[in-house]
Amino acid sequence: MPGYAGSQDEYLTRLRRVEGQVRGLQRMVEGDTYCIDVLTQVAAVTKALQAVSLGLLEDHLAHCVLDAARDPESDEAAAKVREATDAVARLLRS
Amino acid sequence: MPGYAGSQDEYLTRLRRVEGQVRGLQRMVEGDTYCIDVLTQVAAVTKALQAVSLGLLEDHLAHCVLDAARDPESDEAAAKVREATDAVARLLRS
Amino acid sequence: MPGYAGSQDEYLTRLRRVEGQVRGLQRMVEGDTYCIDVLTQVAAVTKALQAVSLGLLEDHLAHCVLDAARDPESDEAAAKVREATDAVARLLRS
Amino acid sequence: MPGYAGSQDEYLTRLRRVEGQVRGLQRMVEGDTYCIDVLTQVAAVTKALQAVSLGLLEDHLAHCVLDAARDPESDEAAAKVREATDAVARLLRS
Repeated sequence: MPGYAGSQDEYLTRLRRVEGQVRGLQRMVEGDTYCIDVLTQVAAVTKALQAVSLGLLEDHLAHCVLDAARDPESDEAAAKVREATDAVARLLRS
Repeated sequence: MPGYAGSQDEYLTRLRRVEGQVRGLQRMVEGDTYCIDVLTQVAAVTKALQAVSLGLLEDHLAHCVLDAARDPESDEAAAKVREATDAVARLLRS
Repeated sequence: MPGYAGSQDEYLTRLRRVEGQVRGLQRMVEGDTYCIDVLTQVAAVTKALQAVSLGLLEDHLAHCVLDAARDPESDEAAAKVREATDAVARLLRS
Repeated sequence: MPGYAGSQDEYLTRLRRVEGQVRGLQRMVEGDTYCIDVLTQVAAVTKALQAVSLGLLEDHLAHCVLDAARDPESDEAAAKVREATDAVARLLRS
């Protein structure tokens, strides 16, 4: 099970809201909304996605990474830390 | 007309693709996809939205801001520059 | 003259403060400061640099770009807008 | 000892290089360098600081967080994960 298993419904609710926001952006563009107002709304959508990312990251560290560290038969913890850091690098660059 | 008037269809196409990507994220979460793979895809969606922002910003500067600068009866150019910079600040923080 | 000519001293003051913050980071690392506290301070320095960027961007748009738009003998305004947008793209990715 | 104890010298070298870059920015501003060229260099410094952050984050997770997870007498692992995620949130917003 993924690290976010316990909050799957919450993530789906948030992602459906993001989907609604993206459809709202389409209506803004179709309705000739002023550029700056569209930009403000794009920033809001990006912020909502970023909050999803941070939640997923915390769930991943708290479950997948800590579980690997605690499992005496696993030697994956260091690799999982590297993988999580690479994911953060992608978030910072996006 | 907004600065992006000449490329409205292109922006709608890009935003519909982003909407599809967000629905793809929902399917990933429903399908118990590994956290890091979901995070990678969230970063891709954020990047696509950022490309939309940069396009809108360039269109806004090239049309709304330059037009205000060229219109001898307008004294809005400086205010529009400030407004555009504030929009960039919101993008950087999102 | 660059767009920031009127505020050169203010930018130098801010950059000297950033330099001091970076030396402070070195002292934190030499003093075995807790990782998270170093990270918090790195984020503060990045934020200070970003504020410098936003100031330079506004000065550039308000002077170099608007001047090019107003000069009937210049056809550089569109190229300058593209160049400024590319600079914003670099800031967003950094 | 902090998580970066094993690479302290490397971090100091990188931070001294960042300090040199910030002094370079001051010389650019004193020398009336074109705004866009200053902005490009600010983005480079921000990128260098971000690389330092990612290194510190990986060291922190690999040492402080994994050690807490492995210590049967520690119940700090979850709190440390939350703290690390908050640090990432600050990096994303800076």
